[in-house]
Order: sequence, then C-alpha cells, then structure tokens
Amino acid sequence: MNTDPYRVKAGGSVHLIDWRTDDDGGLSKDEGRTLTAELLTGLADWQERLNAEAKQSLLIVLQARDAGGKDGTVKHVMGAFNPNGVQIANFKVPTEEERAHDFLWRVHQRAPRAGMIGVFNRSHYEDVLVTRVHGLIDDATANARLSHIRHFESLLRSGGTRILKFYLHVSRDEQKQRLQERLDDPAKHWKFNPADLTERARWDEYTRAYEDALTTSTDAAPWYVIPADRKWFRNLLISQIVLDTLKDMHPQFPKVNFDPREIEIE
Amino acid sequence: MNTDPYRVKAGGSVHLIDWRTDDDGGLSKDEGRTLTAELLTGLADWQERLNAEAKQSLLIVLQARDAGGKDGTVKHVMGAFNPNGVQIANFKVPTEEERAHDFLWRVHQRAPRAGMIGVFNRSHYEDVLVTRVHGLIDDATANARLSHIRHFESLLRSGGTRILKFYLHVSRDEQKQRLQERLDDPAKHWKFNPADLTERARWDEYTRAYEDALTTSTDAAPWYVIPADRKWFRNLLISQIVLDTLKDMHPQFPKVNFDPREIEIE
Repeated sequence: MNTDPYRVKAGGSVHLIDWRTDDDGGLSKDEGRTLTAELLTGLADWQERLNAEAKQSLLIVLQARDAGGKDGTVKHVMGAFNPNGVQIANFKVPTEEERAHDFLWRVHQRAPRAGMIGVFNRSHYEDVLVTRVHGLIDDATANARLSHIRHFESLLRSGGTRILKFYLHVSRDEQKQRLQERLDDPAKHWKFNPADLTERARWDEYTRAYEDALTTSTDAAPWYVIPADRKWFRNLLISQIVLDTLKDMHPQFPKVNFDPREIEIE
Repeated sequence: MNTDPYRVKAGGSVHLIDWRTDDDGGLSKDEGRTLTAELLTGLADWQERLNAEAKQSLLIVLQARDAGGKDGTVKHVMGAFNPNGVQIANFKVPTEEERAHDFLWRVHQRAPRAGMIGVFNRSHYEDVLVTRVHGLIDDATANARLSHIRHFESLLRSGGTRILKFYLHVSRDEQKQRLQERLDDPAKHWKFNPADLTERARWDEYTRAYEDALTTSTDAAPWYVIPADRKWFRNLLISQIVLDTLKDMHPQFPKVNFDPREIEIE
C-alpha cells in the first residue's frame, strides 16, 4: 500500500476538511485485517533487529481528539512489539514540578534510548493544542513553541531517533458515536469524562490548532493524517507506515567480537 | 491447574535439587499451548479492570540464570497485556550514579504506580546474587540486604502493590543447549555473551545464592520456582499464577460521579 498520500508534505499547509476520515483504501474489513496481521508479524521481526543493533531508536507520536483511537492503536498495533523493547509514555496534565520547567523538559526525559521504540500517547503537541484552545497561551507563544518543537525533534533525529507523528482523524459524527458507546456500556463508563463534551464543543478551534501543529511536518519528523473512522483501516495504515520506516532504518544484527565456532560450552 | 506446589512456603528453606526443571504438569505441548492462549485472554481482561480501577498495582519479578527464559517470558506472557498498562524495567550493571546510592534506590523508582503492572527483568535480587558469587559482598552484607529487601517489599505491599517473584529454574544441560543455539544461529549471535560461560562455571555458587534469595518468600511477596526447561510449560504456569493473582486482587471498574442516562451528546 502506498502511504504517501497520507503524509503531510514538509513546508505545506493543511486544511483538514480536505482529508477524509472514512477512507478504507478500497479494501473490505476482512481484507484489511488479514493484511494487518501480516504487517504486525513484520513489525516484531524488525523490532528485534532494532533492539539487537542498539544504535537507532524510533519515536511514534499519537495525537487525536477524545475517542480518536489513541488507546486502541497502542493496544492493537504497538501490542505486536516485544514489550521488552517498547516504552509507552502517557502525558497527562503536567504536575507542579513539570510546570516549573519548560514544556519540553518532561518530554525529553521520555525519549527512547538506542534500540528502543518509544510511543507518546499524547505528547508535547498538547502544549500547542489544549492550551491554545483554552486561551492559556497566545498565538505568539504557540508559534514560538512550534519553533522549539521543530528544533527539539531535529535534536532527537541527530541523536539517531526516527520520528513518526500520527494524527488520528475522526469525524464529528464518529466521535459522537464512540462517546455514546461509553455511556451505553457500563464497562466503559470509566472511560467517559464529562469534560470531553466541553472539548467537543470547541471542535473548530481544535481543528485550527491541529492545522497549525501539522505544519511541523518535516522529512525528518513527518506527520501523517490517518483516516480513523474505521479502526481496522487506522491499524492497517499505521502498521504499514511503521513497518516501512523500520525497514528504511535498516537495523542490522551486530557483529560479534568472538568466533562462534571456537567457543566450547562445558 | 493447582499452582501451590510451585510456591516457596514462607519461612521455609529451599534445596533447588528437589525442584524439577522439566515438569510438564502431565500435559502435552499442544494442550499446554491451548490452555495458555485462554489464560492470556483472561490476563488482558483483568488488566483492563486493574487499569480502570487505578488503586492497586502488580509487580512481577523475573530472575533466572543466563538463557533461563526471562526475555521469552516477557515476550510471550507479558506481551498479552495492553502495552498502555505495563512497564518493563531491565536492570543492567548499575551506573555510576546508581552506585552512589543504596542498592534499592534505582529499583524503587521503577515501582509500578496504581493501575499499572510492572515487570522487573532482573531486579534488586541481582544485588544478592551476582555480587555475592563474585565476592563483591560478604555473607553479612548479603544477609543485611535480604533483610532490607523484605522490608522494602513489605513497604510496596502496604502501598497497594502485589508482588509475584518467579525464579525460572533450568537445568545445566538445558542452559548448555540454549547457549549452543545462540552460537549456531547467526541471527542469535548478538544474544551470546562470552562472559556467560564464566557465570556458568559458577553454577553451584549461584545455586546457593539463589537458595538464600528464595528465603525471602512471604505471603505478601511469594517466590515461585518455575520449571523452565520447557518454554511452553513455563509460559502456562506463569500465566496461571498471574491470572489467579489478578482475580484475587479483584479490581473493579470505578463508579462514575455522573448519570450516563442524563448526558446528551450534541
């Protein structure tokens, strides 16, 4: 599958209204799931090489509106990795200590070390999204932060970290349906936060904030807009992009400094 | 399956020679794998409740000789969990900063927070194993450390953390075979460390050090001696013990402070 159409071109601007939320790639759900299962096996294989090589790392950033599918992506795609080599960072409302530092301080600490895959379930981008929509920062601060983010991601890249950023793009109707499911199913009540409705009411403001965030797409740290109304297609597309990226990083099993034929185990 | 026979009784002493390494529970490999698959589904379900409740946590300690199966256990058993709710801590040779603190300092920092499952791939027990076998600490220091460990684990328990400690028990022959496989397969060369042979030569000293470590089995933080020559039986037994423990912790979906029927999504 060609994933290029889902990539935000570096230097370009984005109008989310032009990006589909319900794309299915011309596939049926069953076809998509079969393809995904194959890709997930490949992910585990390439992760082992990355881990063995221990020279490069991969950082996957997940951003979405509430009920956009971040947790589902972690479970169904990142779940294919050997847990020994993946670390998930969930960024919540900053603590008092975190707020006493610059906004990238806590994020930098969670950057994946060589050999590891790091997943940011929410990320430093929240600091130009929720804060902006709620008027906690003005446009000048937001723009300054976007500039800091570009330099920060370039720093990570220079240290051997590849970065993939996924915006899970759901429609307003799909979000409504998913929130309603949380209300209808007692086992999902705990996932429902009444505050999510306040955020939902600011749909268009979030759209604008996301459009600005997506301008940080570069060749070194590209954004992908993932059509996410269909969970199976979201999983397929992300699996494909991550696998292509791991292959492109081309991690190799390290050479050993001994001759295996000469070693005898007593 | 009754897992009680694999549990080290609190206050008792252990002679590892009395514990089988090649137990199969009277099952065939296929039967074992089918049972494990069912258990793993249960693990994911109960983990969701633990995560939703966010009041208790589970700490799983894995200890074994080289090639004993720690990494395989993480991959095949812990891989069943939603990665959002599990954190793996790999304890390597301590850094300079870590050595400048007491031996539990770095371990305490990696204790799982409420709602999480923490897995220690190697642990604070290395500080009474490798250090002792290599004569870096004397018996008095080892005994003092074992006492500190008991109090430390009791502290975690009082904070809502259940602890399970697994010693993966492999025979000397099985270790030889697994190390040889790493030499024979180029894709596994990187897993072979010539220093492992030095440790292997001290087999009996490690046995004695492990036997002392296993005396820290308490009702609050039990040790299990897992027959680990058969990987499928190791996975089955650990899955069963973890599942039984999660059920016994009885995490509940939290009650919500709103009436789902009264909420309307616009």
